[in-house]
Amino acid sequence: MPKIWNKSIESHRQAVRQAILDSTATLVAQGGFPAATMSQIAERAGIGRATLYKYFPDVEAILVAWHQDHVAAHIARLTELRVGGSDAWERLQAVLLGYAQVARHRGGHGGDLSALVHRGENVLRAEQQLVDLFSGLLTEVAQAGRLRGDVPPKELAQFCIHALGAAGSLRSEAAVRRLVDVTLSALGGST
Amino acid sequence: MPKIWNKSIESHRQAVRQAILDSTATLVAQGGFPAATMSQIAERAGIGRATLYKYFPDVEAILVAWHQDHVAAHIARLTELRVGGSDAWERLQAVLLGYAQVARHRGGHGGDLSALVHRGENVLRAEQQLVDLFSGLLTEVAQAGRLRGDVPPKELAQFCIHALGAAGSLRSEAAVRRLVDVTLSALGGST
Repeated sequence: MPKIWNKSIESHRQAVRQAILDSTATLVAQGGFPAATMSQIAERAGIGRATLYKYFPDVEAILVAWHQDHVAAHIARLTELRVGGSDAWERLQAVLLGYAQVARHRGGHGGDLSALVHRGENVLRAEQQLVDLFSGLLTEVAQAGRLRGDVPPKELAQFCIHALGAAGSLRSEAAVRRLVDVTLSALGGST
Repeated sequence: MPKIWNKSIESHRQAVRQAILDSTATLVAQGGFPAATMSQIAERAGIGRATLYKYFPDVEAILVAWHQDHVAAHIARLTELRVGGSDAWERLQAVLLGYAQVARHRGGHGGDLSALVHRGENVLRAEQQLVDLFSGLLTEVAQAGRLRGDVPPKELAQFCIHALGAAGSLRSEAAVRRLVDVTLSALGGST
């Protein structure tokens, strides 16, 4: 097959996949996790059930894929913030706020759905990426002489990620910003 | 029935219940969560299967009860630490360290078991008790003029609980103490 034809098939596949994920997300948002069926998803995505089954074996697999896409997008966004400015401390502020906002929205997940998508290899890999991202940035902050020197950056990375998880129980954007301030205030060095 | 007879029945029931929980905990620790069966548990607890089913309908119910007992014991211990000393800041240190040690051991749970026991009404109630315990103590620290004044104690309680959850990924007791220091350093006022 000519290359351009391959490309077009691939982009068609991507479009169908995205339609499936979006339709499932909408159905779950409307009726909760166990409510969505493969038939409903196919109908909403505008494809046949047989086609749907070529992409995903069941609703769970779709939800896991949907969650993975979300996580990948969040990590891409945080990576942008990480390299975005010249001052390491300001980039740290931006990444902490960015992650707190992600954590805030995650707080809305129902328990069953959350237990389903937050397991497996891919989630562990994403968690490791997040720890690496925070550790790397905190090491830069340390090199700039702005980080406390008595705790390894990797431990401070775990501290940040967990502390910002509290955003899931916060109601207002102002409270999220206070949480980021509190977390930041634990990280600073004597300079 | 005379009162004393009632009491003896009740303490017998408690002893059997405890034997069931302990046997299940041992079996799960040895072979992982799905390995324990009702027959194995009955055998290990030294009771008949029929008796076991009078206490619990299935393995999951035993594990949930076992977890609830653990959580209740942790909260009782933290409550002791909370009221233990005269100085509010020292009691805060003790409670943070106590909770970090609980969180550290919880980090060892397998994902499936964790997802099973960390859901349901009782867990929500325990979480609320924990938030109340931290909020109450932080309010006392504020009254003693030792807490930062720009963030409500309830938000700081959520911050503490989440931040100390990082202990689950820490390997050493020294690292747990560093985590407590880092968390404490975010809470102090200007005095």
